[in-house]
Amino acid sequence: MTYGPPRRGLREGVMTTIPFADLVALLEQILAAHGCSAEVAAQLARNCAGAERDAAHSHGLFRIEGYLSTLASGWVDGRAVPVLEEAGAAFLRVDGANGFAQPALALAAPLATARARENGACVVAIRRSHHFAALWPDVEPFAEAGLVALAMVNSMAVVVPSGARRPVYGTNPLAFAAPREGGIVVFDQAVSTIAHGDVQIAAREGRSLPPGTGLDAAGQPTDDPNAVLDGGALLAFGGHKGGSIALMIEIMAAALTGGAFSHEVDWSAHPGAQTPCTGELLILIDPARGGSGAGFAARVEQMLGALAAAGQSRLPGDRRMAARAQAMADGVPISAERLAQLRALIV
Amino acid sequence: MTYGPPRRGLREGVMTTIPFADLVALLEQILAAHGCSAEVAAQLARNCAGAERDAAHSHGLFRIEGYLSTLASGWVDGRAVPVLEEAGAAFLRVDGANGFAQPALALAAPLATARARENGACVVAIRRSHHFAALWPDVEPFAEAGLVALAMVNSMAVVVPSGARRPVYGTNPLAFAAPREGGIVVFDQAVSTIAHGDVQIAAREGRSLPPGTGLDAAGQPTDDPNAVLDGGALLAFGGHKGGSIALMIEIMAAALTGGAFSHEVDWSAHPGAQTPCTGELLILIDPARGGSGAGFAARVEQMLGALAAAGQSRLPGDRRMAARAQAMADGVPISAERLAQLRALIV
Repeated sequence: MTYGPPRRGLREGVMTTIPFADLVALLEQILAAHGCSAEVAAQLARNCAGAERDAAHSHGLFRIEGYLSTLASGWVDGRAVPVLEEAGAAFLRVDGANGFAQPALALAAPLATARARENGACVVAIRRSHHFAALWPDVEPFAEAGLVALAMVNSMAVVVPSGARRPVYGTNPLAFAAPREGGIVVFDQAVSTIAHGDVQIAAREGRSLPPGTGLDAAGQPTDDPNAVLDGGALLAFGGHKGGSIALMIEIMAAALTGGAFSHEVDWSAHPGAQTPCTGELLILIDPARGGSGAGFAARVEQMLGALAAAGQSRLPGDRRMAARAQAMADGVPISAERLAQLRALIV
Repeated sequence: MTYGPPRRGLREGVMTTIPFADLVALLEQILAAHGCSAEVAAQLARNCAGAERDAAHSHGLFRIEGYLSTLASGWVDGRAVPVLEEAGAAFLRVDGANGFAQPALALAAPLATARARENGACVVAIRRSHHFAALWPDVEPFAEAGLVALAMVNSMAVVVPSGARRPVYGTNPLAFAAPREGGIVVFDQAVSTIAHGDVQIAAREGRSLPPGTGLDAAGQPTDDPNAVLDGGALLAFGGHKGGSIALMIEIMAAALTGGAFSHEVDWSAHPGAQTPCTGELLILIDPARGGSGAGFAARVEQMLGALAAAGQSRLPGDRRMAARAQAMADGVPISAERLAQLRALIV
């Protein structure tokens, strides 16, 4: 492996870079050494390295210790073999078999793509699956293949419903991707005002949270990330409207798939567990069947052009795409200290 | 027609009631007298009377003059005959033929329901359709038939994207409905902080808007509904996250269906026009195909039970359902003055 010249990072000590493929290989070795099958390690490594490459640090290398701790706890099966079930011409089910969601989705993706192209739409309902990663990697490949994709995952109870006293909803991300001319448009957003991983990072870095983000254990507003993590809770974005979306995601990702609701996740018998075992729903639509036909991507481009003309300088996903392009050219930035830590995890 | 005893209303003069069926019949006569075919008048009358019955005044009788003004302007075809196109086993298209969206959806609904049951899912993409009504009536019947339904409509440019200077998005409502035990759970929410109809009502009643709702023509925050209506704009709920949902709805309801984007709606040649001609997308899923199978409604019930246990006293849609039950028992409340106005509209 070769690394770029050391440089000063904003967040940590002496910075270096690592080629993306080498980072994937490193994470693969780590995960395989801690209980993942080769297939599962490959999926998770690519996903996690991809988030780090995209500068989405809360879903990148920051998650590695959580994966390992959960594997060690016996809560997740790192060698699970998911099972694909054809429930209809436009409906696939996957039993995640208490493994990670990414291998379950990878199993269904080729048939789901084919079914969406044949029939115009296809649903993928994944249950008994652990999702501990960013959600945009689940939708991006479908948009790159010309489909419109919507994904929803529920997680663990950390978001307080409108008017309620304690958390019931997960951070429940919603991700959407669609083809545009020469690329894709994509967003991935939690229903909480901020992602849980960002609360953890704020706690680690000693930063306070923006106002209106969370409640402490007594149900009082707080800007202290530790108070949120220590029995507190997050609020939904946009009040009851964000709460409605959280409820829809519980119904779609759990009730519909056969997975657990966020409030049902109980890992108390597995100290160290951090990955919620719930469900995930994907909806794939072939835009070529719609009224714009082959002109769909051009229409999306016109819409994005209207946003730019109105003064919106940045689209959701733009920052990630820019970080990705730079990391693919120059390597993924990483501190020398963190790189050494990771290497030490290969037992 | 018989009406209940007069009573004092909070908003208008002497109140009376009218049986729901009679209100539907009255609106049907009005719409037919102003250029709608019998089929279109029946669909719109039922929809509009239903919103009034549900105490959703901004989408009820308040809309009648807007319908008539638009019909008189020649912008919408009240006698349009929509055309259903089978684009795939799980994809139906409807050309609304410059008519209202409700008859277009009614045309597709039986086949869409059958396709969702046969194949597990079905998309309905409606284009060249005017949607001037509440969106929950579009999803409720599917949930009552045992399906999960998601609907999205774009409208006309009144919502400013995050970081932009002028409106591009419509109020773009999202509606969701799913079966629960003995009923359905349903929500319908605009991406704007409040519905455009509620801004119009606030203006009419001389009330100011909640803080953070809108901008005036100069792009400055305002609580004056007239300033919003007079060249101003609304903000999306939850900042950039609500904006992402607005963008998804433009892509789904317009780019995918072949309809116009909100910012493309141009009725300048039709003074009096008020109904945006855009598109609508529905996604129907058969929950019986999912991992909970026939137990789906019971699982939804468990989720709703968890919300109640956490202290959430009211679900989205509860207020409407309560108003509906009362109006079906006692008649729909209406002021005597308004009833006389409406009767005078039967030319």
